[in-house]
Amino acid sequence: MALIVHKYGGTSMGSTDRIRNVAKRVAKWVRAGHQMVVVPSAMSGETNRLLGLAKELAPGQVTPEVMREMDMIAATGEQVSVGLLAIALQAEGVASVSYTGWQVPVRTDSSYTKARIESIDDARVREDLAAGKVVVIAGFQGIDEEQNITTLGRGGSDTSAVAIAAAMKADECLIYTDVDGVYTTDPRIVPEARRMNRISFEEMLEMASLGSKILQIRSVEFAGKYRVPLRVLSSFTPWDIDIHEEAASGTLITFEEDENMEQAIVSGIAFSRDEAKVTLLGVPDKPGIAFQILGPVAEANIDVDVIIQNVSNDGKTDFSFTVHRNDYARAMELLQQKVGPATNAGQVLGDPKICKVSIVGIGMRSHVGVASKMFRALSEEGINIQMISTSEIKTSVVIDEKYMELAVRALHKAFDLDQAAISA
Amino acid sequence: MALIVHKYGGTSMGSTDRIRNVAKRVAKWVRAGHQMVVVPSAMSGETNRLLGLAKELAPGQVTPEVMREMDMIAATGEQVSVGLLAIALQAEGVASVSYTGWQVPVRTDSSYTKARIESIDDARVREDLAAGKVVVIAGFQGIDEEQNITTLGRGGSDTSAVAIAAAMKADECLIYTDVDGVYTTDPRIVPEARRMNRISFEEMLEMASLGSKILQIRSVEFAGKYRVPLRVLSSFTPWDIDIHEEAASGTLITFEEDENMEQAIVSGIAFSRDEAKVTLLGVPDKPGIAFQILGPVAEANIDVDVIIQNVSNDGKTDFSFTVHRNDYARAMELLQQKVGPATNAGQVLGDPKICKVSIVGIGMRSHVGVASKMFRALSEEGINIQMISTSEIKTSVVIDEKYMELAVRALHKAFDLDQAAISA
Repeated sequence: MALIVHKYGGTSMGSTDRIRNVAKRVAKWVRAGHQMVVVPSAMSGETNRLLGLAKELAPGQVTPEVMREMDMIAATGEQVSVGLLAIALQAEGVASVSYTGWQVPVRTDSSYTKARIESIDDARVREDLAAGKVVVIAGFQGIDEEQNITTLGRGGSDTSAVAIAAAMKADECLIYTDVDGVYTTDPRIVPEARRMNRISFEEMLEMASLGSKILQIRSVEFAGKYRVPLRVLSSFTPWDIDIHEEAASGTLITFEEDENMEQAIVSGIAFSRDEAKVTLLGVPDKPGIAFQILGPVAEANIDVDVIIQNVSNDGKTDFSFTVHRNDYARAMELLQQKVGPATNAGQVLGDPKICKVSIVGIGMRSHVGVASKMFRALSEEGINIQMISTSEIKTSVVIDEKYMELAVRALHKAFDLDQAAISA
Repeated sequence: MALIVHKYGGTSMGSTDRIRNVAKRVAKWVRAGHQMVVVPSAMSGETNRLLGLAKELAPGQVTPEVMREMDMIAATGEQVSVGLLAIALQAEGVASVSYTGWQVPVRTDSSYTKARIESIDDARVREDLAAGKVVVIAGFQGIDEEQNITTLGRGGSDTSAVAIAAAMKADECLIYTDVDGVYTTDPRIVPEARRMNRISFEEMLEMASLGSKILQIRSVEFAGKYRVPLRVLSSFTPWDIDIHEEAASGTLITFEEDENMEQAIVSGIAFSRDEAKVTLLGVPDKPGIAFQILGPVAEANIDVDVIIQNVSNDGKTDFSFTVHRNDYARAMELLQQKVGPATNAGQVLGDPKICKVSIVGIGMRSHVGVASKMFRALSEEGINIQMISTSEIKTSVVIDEKYMELAVRALHKAFDLDQAAISA
């Protein structure tokens, strides 16, 4: 008997028929002898519908008071889901009980709409499990010190599931989603992309943060911190497939770096179209200049990703960085009106039509020449590299947006990702 | 400065535009210097939608476990409403904060889907009011001792509003609804029906329980118990009408029996089509027979309304009573299969096509001959009376359903309800 956490996304919960299927699947796991905690998302479309209503009424300035109410409203989506799933389980003859975030409780800070989990009290859940019940817990939500409802932000149900699995020391956390695992890259761009049976936690972190939108990055961080074995698998396989087959399907995110994994130098290609580049030309090359530029940007709550400072030329240097495309207009305004004048920059340039493409693999740690192989592959396709950023297990380049698909395909081929099976 | 509680029904909260109007109306009351607590219902149709989803999944047998989940689901309707209304108030420049039932907390027993309020802790609400905020509280819901969400049943938001007004010793509780007050009878049946400016609490109780579906009966009971001045008024008057005019509109349910009220012997005509009659013919007329018949009925959770036992004839008597029409089939089955044989009844008869018509008025206390005037008016229309039931301030008759409108019109005229203005 194992303690298993299942997480089901909004599509899996999209209708009463689908909820019935989720219940049948969970019932199968119960009958196989497992203790089950299930964390469902809101029914698909529901969170958008609720926040749409709120936004129709919200004043132009979105204050903390308004964001508190947004959380109050949005949290109901998951509350409905847990109630419906608990009823569906009971209809399958499985004892079950549902809880909201505050009933568990899942304690968070007070950052409305993007709260962080601080602690989870699992006493009540353990009691129910001991009494033979399936416990259905609302994802995406928690409660702060003042008893206000908070939400964790988009994709927060993944984080809830992993955090609950961590708090309860679950044997495995299974994330049922509308894809059947993690691929070497997006199959819509590279039809030859292959599903990985396993991926290391660190690689998954890089893949997730670089735009492979399968798992919310914070859920992967949580899994890493608490070493929760995590599996991404499809909720579209029939609910009644053999449970051992199901338990081995999808992609396991693991902490054991076995030999199989070492064989692949590069495990996958990630990419993101959500970036924009800004450049300050001709700023004085003096100590503290990076802080003078990026300090105000951070103060404005604009996240910076890749940062490049060119070599100095006559005491002047060029300074570039990328921001999320949604922040591009604000970043440009800030640089043109405040930072540029304050730093005596010669000129402010911007380019929202860029993208970032990355190769990811823990094999890069022990292999040299991986980055140069990447640069050669891109140069053979005539793709100009604008910025480069590296870490221990990934190398990212910023290139013109129009080359993105070409670059991803070229790199997927160059590193033989369409070839060797990565066995489980 | 007064402390005022407003309650808005589902129709008033039916769209973001209507919610905006509610916010403007509340803002007007705030600007007039009042402390405001607002209790909204779920957006119209929402509770039905949510319970519809739940019922699609519910097993045939509705257990307490399923009912707990129904409450979990249904309570979200009001939670969305309070969040939206708080945002709309903030957009009007009015500081506001919303609370669910459990956040207040509104403590109830554990009778899921029809819980009863046990206590309300108003400390947090008072703090917010003192800080100049409008407090928006979700109606219809509470929390039990085990931290489970409960709901109060249909119309429960009225009860929430009155209970909160009682707990806070509010100066008045205004129930905004889609009618503009309490009428002498239903204007759809009697076009000459007049709105009453005032009605006594006891009359309102009889009117409410007899099917004038303006206020949930429990809310009237609550208002009576804690002497909360209650006003029913229309949410369809423009939000910007003069506040003194608005404050005096609708119908005030009062505890002061002034002379004006005494002038009307009968204040209104109530009626209900929701009843059915069952009769046991030829049961032995012996001590304990009423309990032998009604005990099993009560055990089956079937509410009995009017009860008649005819005079004995050769040691045998006929025993009739009315039940809610929804319980008719169950009651008949119970009588035919269990109670009839057990009591040696000659025959079990049933008639679901009956109705109950009542005259209500505190003036009946001090005036004789009111009931006989009622019976004469009905007999003049050729309407046969099947059962009679009386109390201090009302007389009810059970008649053939097809005569209902005719009976209501005849009684409305006989007691001059279309004539004299009942002044405020």
